[in-house]
Amino acid sequence: MSAATIVVGWDIGGANLKAVRLDGDEVLGFVTRPFELWRAPDDLAAEIRHAGRELRIGPNARHAITMTAELADCYRTKSEGVRAVLAAHAEAFPDDERRVLEVEGSFVGVEAAIGTPLSVAGANWMASAAWLASESASPDTRASPGSTPLPDRRAGPAILLDVGSTTTDVIPFEAGRVLAAGRTDPERLSLRELVYTGASRTPLCAVMETAPFRGAECPVAAEHFAIAADAHLWLGDLAPAAYACPTPDGGPADRAGAGARLARMVCADAEMLGEAEISAIARRAADRQVDAIASALQRVAARLVERARRASIHPDLPAANGFPAVIAGSGAWLGEAAARRAGLNVELLGERLGILATLLPAYGAARLLQERDHESPLGRGLHVP
Amino acid sequence: MSAATIVVGWDIGGANLKAVRLDGDEVLGFVTRPFELWRAPDDLAAEIRHAGRELRIGPNARHAITMTAELADCYRTKSEGVRAVLAAHAEAFPDDERRVLEVEGSFVGVEAAIGTPLSVAGANWMASAAWLASESASPDTRASPGSTPLPDRRAGPAILLDVGSTTTDVIPFEAGRVLAAGRTDPERLSLRELVYTGASRTPLCAVMETAPFRGAECPVAAEHFAIAADAHLWLGDLAPAAYACPTPDGGPADRAGAGARLARMVCADAEMLGEAEISAIARRAADRQVDAIASALQRVAARLVERARRASIHPDLPAANGFPAVIAGSGAWLGEAAARRAGLNVELLGERLGILATLLPAYGAARLLQERDHESPLGRGLHVP
Repeated sequence: MSAATIVVGWDIGGANLKAVRLDGDEVLGFVTRPFELWRAPDDLAAEIRHAGRELRIGPNARHAITMTAELADCYRTKSEGVRAVLAAHAEAFPDDERRVLEVEGSFVGVEAAIGTPLSVAGANWMASAAWLASESASPDTRASPGSTPLPDRRAGPAILLDVGSTTTDVIPFEAGRVLAAGRTDPERLSLRELVYTGASRTPLCAVMETAPFRGAECPVAAEHFAIAADAHLWLGDLAPAAYACPTPDGGPADRAGAGARLARMVCADAEMLGEAEISAIARRAADRQVDAIASALQRVAARLVERARRASIHPDLPAANGFPAVIAGSGAWLGEAAARRAGLNVELLGERLGILATLLPAYGAARLLQERDHESPLGRGLHVP
Repeated sequence: MSAATIVVGWDIGGANLKAVRLDGDEVLGFVTRPFELWRAPDDLAAEIRHAGRELRIGPNARHAITMTAELADCYRTKSEGVRAVLAAHAEAFPDDERRVLEVEGSFVGVEAAIGTPLSVAGANWMASAAWLASESASPDTRASPGSTPLPDRRAGPAILLDVGSTTTDVIPFEAGRVLAAGRTDPERLSLRELVYTGASRTPLCAVMETAPFRGAECPVAAEHFAIAADAHLWLGDLAPAAYACPTPDGGPADRAGAGARLARMVCADAEMLGEAEISAIARRAADRQVDAIASALQRVAARLVERARRASIHPDLPAANGFPAVIAGSGAWLGEAAARRAGLNVELLGERLGILATLLPAYGAARLLQERDHESPLGRGLHVP
């Protein structure tokens, strides 16, 4: 393995731009830039270039690209979005090689990606899951140097639970194989492999129909008054500095600001409600998010059990609640609560990867591309169903 | 009654500014100005002045003010909002007399309003209901000249159902009396006298948890991708010209634009989905809105029945579904569908008032102020419970 090869993994989303730089086996930098793409689509190339400068990427880096930004509603269609994202990346790094991960787990060139845009749209989850599956297959050689290696090659399936700022991925995998059933976003939503809830940006009007108010259930305002970050900041689970998106009202990302926004959810204000009343609203929101994720985990776990029964593999397969949930993302605490509620075993990826567990698709994409470079074309590929 | 007295009724909301000008008994003008207050709170005075110019209001008009704008999240508290709204109105019409309607149905001066801001916050529904109650008590003298008079003084209770762009008011009343149980917004929400759903601005992620997608239920994206106006425009119930708010994606307010936005609700795009699939999403959204309003109607009607039983009044009171629903607002078709679903009798206010039925609080406030001017202080007041 040539230590001089620079590989940069990208996770280009609609609200965040993430990148990880690998030099051989070493992680030499990572960046998370909040960027509301739909407000300034023309700035995407500049934002990508800026992220590259933060990573001090010199010439001739190789780029492993994943994206979800194509769904941003500045693009009329996903096809238009995929073209725009790849064009922006090319504008930022005109001379570098680009490989784009598609939802089946292979890398393709830019022309192929543009030719079949739905095959690369929203594929960032595959980067995470395929890398985890690969790492599980050979922990000794694949784990990061200096990190705690996995105790064993995985014996059975596990579920990646990556709770981000906006969405949550729930991806079953086992050693060497990603077991996801969905590919496109609507399929993944329908199968609960994608849960459109996250630790920061989720509008609370999409999280709960009602909130407790003085002994009654008060339907909440259908307005962008408060987001998940307000509930979690109020409850102490999210540090004010981690409130990495604009506040809905443009007010401060602190506890008082969050309280005012939460009070508006029942069309009240911070003068009408006491601390306990605001806490009840915040707790309801967090509880509903944990419920949504736990319920998705149970559905995905149930499919794993069903698959094993049908195939008569893993005769000693545990019950649906016996799988490990491998938890990643900036909302890991929500994932942990959901995994416990669903009765799964908790495995915190952050304990091995540190902050890289909050940039898993970017990190996974970089590691995967590096790995593929060192396998012969006839070597072991990654199996996807 | 002096025909020369100009009275202007105002309904100052967070997303729309509405005003009606009465000269004696005649309606000499009305205006509805979409205005997203929270984006430009400093422009409120100019917007009010502009509305006044459209109405050609000369000096010495009397202003009957109702508001909901104080809830806009450019204001830290409702108290701050009430002060700002009244200050903006004073800046627009420095020399005129202002009377502010409060939630008990009386008019107060500006200083009193600022002194007890929660008594005037969100009181626009009371303008509509109090005027209807008053009109019901004496249809011969109170109906607009030239309009069809009410056939009879109302014999029993009715329910005002005003479906606006953003919210719906469900207000029980009878001749001479408003029977609403709630006063503040959170109380009214909890009692379902305020339903936070409307014909235009409501984000669809707050309307439905899932939408049909190829035989499955697909959870919708928790994003501001599409609003109620997109569903109703797609279904043909809202004319493109009546799409009186910005589109979520900044795209065109036409059928193709609405289709693209609706497709994003399941993280798809207009190329992935056919017409029938988009229609299924739109129909689900409309259906959920009608359900929410119908369910509120039933709860309010049930309280009317309970009240009559307890008081042993109206011994011949009809069953809960026998009340007339008096339907107003820019989303009257939704109100009509909800009233039919709830089994109530439909009475369309637009058939008597025309377009004024879409500015009912402004019209009601003006009529009420005019009426009060011509009653002695010891005369019949409006009864509120």
